[in-house]
Amino acid sequence: MIKTDILIIGAGPTGLFAVFEAGLLQLKCHLIDALPQSGGQCSEIYPKKPIYDIPGFPEVLAGDLVTNLMEQIKPFEPGFTLGERAQTIEKLEDGTFIVTTNKGTKHHAPIVAIAGGLGSFEPRKPLLENLNKYEDNGVAYIIKDPEVYRDKRVVIAGGGDSALDWSIFLADVASQVTLVHRRSEFRGALDSVEKVQHLKNAGKINLVTPGEIVGLQGEKTLEAVTIRKTTNPDEDVILEVDNFVPLFGLSPKLGPIADWGLDIEKNAIKVDTFDYQTNVPGIYAIGDVNTYPGKLKLILCGFHEATLMCQSAYQRIYPDKKYVMKYTTVGGVTGFDGSKKEAPKAVVKSID
Amino acid sequence: MIKTDILIIGAGPTGLFAVFEAGLLQLKCHLIDALPQSGGQCSEIYPKKPIYDIPGFPEVLAGDLVTNLMEQIKPFEPGFTLGERAQTIEKLEDGTFIVTTNKGTKHHAPIVAIAGGLGSFEPRKPLLENLNKYEDNGVAYIIKDPEVYRDKRVVIAGGGDSALDWSIFLADVASQVTLVHRRSEFRGALDSVEKVQHLKNAGKINLVTPGEIVGLQGEKTLEAVTIRKTTNPDEDVILEVDNFVPLFGLSPKLGPIADWGLDIEKNAIKVDTFDYQTNVPGIYAIGDVNTYPGKLKLILCGFHEATLMCQSAYQRIYPDKKYVMKYTTVGGVTGFDGSKKEAPKAVVKSID
Repeated sequence: MIKTDILIIGAGPTGLFAVFEAGLLQLKCHLIDALPQSGGQCSEIYPKKPIYDIPGFPEVLAGDLVTNLMEQIKPFEPGFTLGERAQTIEKLEDGTFIVTTNKGTKHHAPIVAIAGGLGSFEPRKPLLENLNKYEDNGVAYIIKDPEVYRDKRVVIAGGGDSALDWSIFLADVASQVTLVHRRSEFRGALDSVEKVQHLKNAGKINLVTPGEIVGLQGEKTLEAVTIRKTTNPDEDVILEVDNFVPLFGLSPKLGPIADWGLDIEKNAIKVDTFDYQTNVPGIYAIGDVNTYPGKLKLILCGFHEATLMCQSAYQRIYPDKKYVMKYTTVGGVTGFDGSKKEAPKAVVKSID
Repeated sequence: MIKTDILIIGAGPTGLFAVFEAGLLQLKCHLIDALPQSGGQCSEIYPKKPIYDIPGFPEVLAGDLVTNLMEQIKPFEPGFTLGERAQTIEKLEDGTFIVTTNKGTKHHAPIVAIAGGLGSFEPRKPLLENLNKYEDNGVAYIIKDPEVYRDKRVVIAGGGDSALDWSIFLADVASQVTLVHRRSEFRGALDSVEKVQHLKNAGKINLVTPGEIVGLQGEKTLEAVTIRKTTNPDEDVILEVDNFVPLFGLSPKLGPIADWGLDIEKNAIKVDTFDYQTNVPGIYAIGDVNTYPGKLKLILCGFHEATLMCQSAYQRIYPDKKYVMKYTTVGGVTGFDGSKKEAPKAVVKSID
């Protein structure tokens, strides 16, 4: 059982910054995220895209913002349960919560802060009747660890940046890479499209376009796929492979959280703007996942909400203590790891 | 008469960021600030101090944050009335406002956003009976343009960073610099104290400690000051000078805004958290100057408040238009200066 002060569901920018504000109040945080790394959409969907509306950054790549936030919260040693989706919540008699993931990991905390963004990102799946059977047995929708594919024969399906980028990356890792896309045109960074063209010409990527995977075979694990070329639908080809990775994009779903008894409006969790608490005392919702009058789904708003949430969480955990806010410029930042950052102190010194 | 869409009173970080969010909505801004430069406290009080709680910056100097914000809002060409204090406000019949400064500059706008921080910073003044007479005639409390002091004989009074730093700076500009402080000990950056010691040793700064200025003389403009050494109070010295600059710090005062008919609680302006509007429709208050349940006086909260305020201002100016928010990552940023920043577009390209 993982124990913490504030259990944060969602490790996007809002959830990450909550760790910092909690840390200033000496509260520890643990984050759960369905994705295999922190950063939420910023890392998974658009790490190389510039954001222009983070205050103080005329331009920052989404991936760099996450890197900066990870650096900023490092002194407060957050824990992470990654690649698992928060599934169920149970409120104990003492008012604390136990949250269990889809893989059975249990977390215990007096405060739960849902920073789930648009929801957990679920992969769009191809319509293949025996797809389920091969999930985690040769079929995957997200590449968590590319080493899994070393010296394997891999089929990737899709026509966007993920399909392009992973085909390029795996060309040097896998023994065979086949990229299948329903159209001849790919949509992605010019650079990526050109690289795939180059690797195809060099014989390092087999390209099947326009085409699709129409069947999966294998005793227990995946052993082969059936490829249909759109231009030649009567002559399907069976290709022996070890892995099939359809990269058709992710679509956000509020998911199991929708069943946690929280007031929900248009797929978002209703909160009070005083402290961004939900209708269930002790459960907060911050960032894109919440809604209130005037709500804007902006990262900078999530930062504000996370900050006010932490003050309220502190009062809930320590009802008898009065916290006096100190500015970091004055008081510095004292990490749980023993680190201390502070402004150089003024000296008092006479001049002779 | 200066005309704009949103008249922002206070050019600190919150006021500056409001320009950006307004710009995204194609609204123009003009800022008034009593200080001679933008940035508020960050520029005037602690430009070289690190701030640790700006999201995405593990550490940023207050002065650098202001520089970044100025760069971020540059495409939206804000106007500035600096070195003047917003004094009076008049609501016209059409619901728009005219704001006049202490120097008589008039501004006309449908929206007024008060981002006044802790108030306008008023200098602490020495108790000298004829001080008023010499204000702007040899006596100043803020150094706006150091060139004013070129080849002049200057007396600076004070024992903090401002007194130290300006003494150092003017040692190369003025013909004579005399630094007077009531104590022998100075309180400031070690580096500054050491530099003053060095300049004193080199005969470039005259130091009088412990001592104070007890009299001012001059027909119309300042011609001399009376210096009293604490150790020798019976032998005052009259020193012929052109300028006297007491740098005893600034203290924030809500000032004339307190008389604008706004609901005020503990020196702060009460607002609704829906859009940070005051009790007077069309007048908003954002950043440290406002108060509401749960309020935290943090820069990051001001950013959020500025953002929601702009949405409401837009609706007030264009009641019939429905604004559809576009993410900067998707839509980019189009400046009033013709500049355009946007993420590289994906290409759609076939691979042969």
